[in-house]
Amino acid sequence: MVGGHLIAGDWIAGEGDVFLSEPATGGARRFTSATKVEVEAAANAAEEAFAEYSAATALQRSRFLDRIAAEITAQADGIIGTACAETGLPEARIRAELDRTTGQLRLFAQHILQRGWLDERHDPALPTRVPPRPDLRLIQRPVGPVAVFSASNFPLAFSVAGGDTASALAAGCPVIVKAHQAHPATSELVAQAIDASRRAEGLPGGVFAMLQSATRVTGSALVTHPLITAVGFTGSTAGGRALFDLCAARPVPIPFYGELGSVNPLFVLRGAGLRRGADIARGWATSLTQGAGQFCTKPGLAILPEGEIAERFVQSAAAALADVPTQCMLSNAIAQGFRASISKLEEKPGVIEKHGSVVADGRDMGPILLRTRAEDFLADPEMAEEAFGPGGLVITVSDPQEASALARSLPGQLTATVHGDPEDQPEARTLFGILERKAGRLIWNGFPTGVEVADAMVHGGPYPASTNFGHTSVGTMAIRRWLRPVCYQDMPSTVFPVRSACPSRS
Amino acid sequence: MVGGHLIAGDWIAGEGDVFLSEPATGGARRFTSATKVEVEAAANAAEEAFAEYSAATALQRSRFLDRIAAEITAQADGIIGTACAETGLPEARIRAELDRTTGQLRLFAQHILQRGWLDERHDPALPTRVPPRPDLRLIQRPVGPVAVFSASNFPLAFSVAGGDTASALAAGCPVIVKAHQAHPATSELVAQAIDASRRAEGLPGGVFAMLQSATRVTGSALVTHPLITAVGFTGSTAGGRALFDLCAARPVPIPFYGELGSVNPLFVLRGAGLRRGADIARGWATSLTQGAGQFCTKPGLAILPEGEIAERFVQSAAAALADVPTQCMLSNAIAQGFRASISKLEEKPGVIEKHGSVVADGRDMGPILLRTRAEDFLADPEMAEEAFGPGGLVITVSDPQEASALARSLPGQLTATVHGDPEDQPEARTLFGILERKAGRLIWNGFPTGVEVADAMVHGGPYPASTNFGHTSVGTMAIRRWLRPVCYQDMPSTVFPVRSACPSRS
Repeated sequence: MVGGHLIAGDWIAGEGDVFLSEPATGGARRFTSATKVEVEAAANAAEEAFAEYSAATALQRSRFLDRIAAEITAQADGIIGTACAETGLPEARIRAELDRTTGQLRLFAQHILQRGWLDERHDPALPTRVPPRPDLRLIQRPVGPVAVFSASNFPLAFSVAGGDTASALAAGCPVIVKAHQAHPATSELVAQAIDASRRAEGLPGGVFAMLQSATRVTGSALVTHPLITAVGFTGSTAGGRALFDLCAARPVPIPFYGELGSVNPLFVLRGAGLRRGADIARGWATSLTQGAGQFCTKPGLAILPEGEIAERFVQSAAAALADVPTQCMLSNAIAQGFRASISKLEEKPGVIEKHGSVVADGRDMGPILLRTRAEDFLADPEMAEEAFGPGGLVITVSDPQEASALARSLPGQLTATVHGDPEDQPEARTLFGILERKAGRLIWNGFPTGVEVADAMVHGGPYPASTNFGHTSVGTMAIRRWLRPVCYQDMPSTVFPVRSACPSRS
Repeated sequence: MVGGHLIAGDWIAGEGDVFLSEPATGGARRFTSATKVEVEAAANAAEEAFAEYSAATALQRSRFLDRIAAEITAQADGIIGTACAETGLPEARIRAELDRTTGQLRLFAQHILQRGWLDERHDPALPTRVPPRPDLRLIQRPVGPVAVFSASNFPLAFSVAGGDTASALAAGCPVIVKAHQAHPATSELVAQAIDASRRAEGLPGGVFAMLQSATRVTGSALVTHPLITAVGFTGSTAGGRALFDLCAARPVPIPFYGELGSVNPLFVLRGAGLRRGADIARGWATSLTQGAGQFCTKPGLAILPEGEIAERFVQSAAAALADVPTQCMLSNAIAQGFRASISKLEEKPGVIEKHGSVVADGRDMGPILLRTRAEDFLADPEMAEEAFGPGGLVITVSDPQEASALARSLPGQLTATVHGDPEDQPEARTLFGILERKAGRLIWNGFPTGVEVADAMVHGGPYPASTNFGHTSVGTMAIRRWLRPVCYQDMPSTVFPVRSACPSRS
């Protein structure tokens, strides 16, 4: 373990401040935070690599992605062991996440061999028209070096070789990853797999860099560096907004594709609540506590009719949650953050019921269920903030109008879910009409955790779910974030072929 | 003439400060600047109209756009007369621009009847997979109320019913136009045509609003209003950046699609310069002075080899420019701005030659040609700033390396052009490799003025050419700016049909 950074194809120990990892099990390791000088070196190498990498054929890039997937698979045992130790997540979960990560890489490897992502358009010349029309060809081109900020909660799938990296490398952009300090050793192992693949494919060193850091200095230097052209980020609203603001304030502003906070409301309508409330409650409890509730898509709010439906739902959910063991959180800081969020919530006068309790200190956390009324929730916007951990808030509504008012009050979300039976369909239509403007994904009779990596997935939504509601960070459409359209007017292929973008097998 | 605003389907005189129009010919008219309260009323009406308008079928919206085009055509004589009087542009130009404007509306009317713009994707359910995959459908949906800032230089095509309005209405977004103070009467006539079409189609009043203003207060209130979801803008870098900054600093940031400044470099390579330098110089002079040089795509810089090629090029261009009569500028402010830009340039010690002269005062302006050397240009970034008017700067380079260095030094551009003969192709490839990262449109042996409204057009580029290099403001791809992808999981059409987006003829 180097404990440092991968820059321009070389591993260096780094000159920056030392920080220690805080694994859930096993000993701490020593890492350094990348300095501004190291950020500069990584950005320069990425820019230098751009010409060659952006001119590589789609087939070459596809092979590179496939090889990264193969290399991660070959190193799976070491990566999984390290990731489990650092994050406290169970092996089965990390193993599944590794498969998802290699699946994402292979999906993009396949995706760029078709031509759809290139958005090719051609308006042939009309030389006899008055005025004549020139020949116009449009194709999407990679934007330039991209900075990617790893998430804490998916140490593989939203991290060093995660969806942002895979989609940006697929697009033809060199990538500089700012690794998450919650799993630095895992990050180093995955970066080694990428670097080995890069070498094997004969690509320049600047195509991929990984910087460790436990300070804000590294990230700030990265997003404000003139050679960085776009940023991908998954993390907290506060941290993401700070970086978004830096990107917007640059002399040359750049897009910041941030996936920030979401509480993912789940509505249970009367018919469904009466007939299968207990089943939905159990499903909710499972979705709520998956990965210790550390999913961006955790359905943190359950909204349902007051009275008998609510009583039975809370009873069933509380019983299901009582069977969920305490789980180790991703980091001490995240455990503390969740504890603080729950403490703040449970002290509110409107919170009238509580099941479970947060452990006073330490990194393990049991599930928590709180309950309030819509009128109290609507009066206090703080209740709509994300509590990142295995906790959920039941909100009772007195009628469908109050459910609609509550839906309208919500900030932007990654997902919104409605459970209903056939008799609930009119109310569901009304709710979805509101929720469609609030969320990137609308779910009928399901649960939002489990984000399928597919063509039709949208993992994004109005702010603060994401900073760019026009895009997704999961699924093949994620590649659009790293592309810009260019029009070629009367351009013969002998002068400027743009062949680089084509999936030519030559 | 009301001299006020169209809000919620009603014309009001307005409570704000009075300003007078400054037409090139004829008497001044009285208008008011929309107040914050009036902006609020327009935003509320747009939000109220969104539900119905976004749920309209593509066919309904297509009919609305076609009707606007027909209504503008029916009112053509009045609109053209008023636009000529206000802007000083000749009738033939305004007549062509009116055709372009109605052509744009009809193009989008056709475009949304095909399904491509919806980006539909479907991943069918895989119920037997472990874990099962839900049914996922992705479709693009309109973002919400859109604010559009008219440009001064195209009083029809980039104004009240211009490309931004056409593409946003096509997408399903209500539009609030902040009219340009340089042509307020033209704006009122065009807004009347849109409003008559809206009434005829039975659409709600909030679908389209037009606000007059000669102060920054209106625009600031508009882009910071919580109900506005996206902004389209064509104008100066300073004004656009100020609005961009306001959009980014909102509690809920929104995308600002600004098309700001561009000097559109045009490179003449040795072979072409030797063989057909005089022809290129004449073509350049024409492109440079079209519409009094008030085109976003005016090729303000001509870069060519020093020595004989440069001497002949300057001689031919100067002779061609001497035949161009003085032209009336769009407004007194623009005339003054051009005069100031040229004065600043010609005082620079590196500017070694001058042909033509700006009129000391008044709104008419004759063409100007200045000349400098690449080393002086590279030493002074101010020389790369846009001078909005009929002026051009010839820059001589000592060798191809200096031409490349100059290309590399340029900020983002809407277009970049290279003129070359077959022997110049190696050098052209090198230059285009650099210019591809600088501009949204690359042109071989042509001129950048004349922006075709077509599928393959890109009118955008790296900052400051645009604030969102991933988009275009001209051509059918412009509709993407007003859309966001939404994923529907296991959603039966009885619950939430999304039929609104389909080009159903029912």
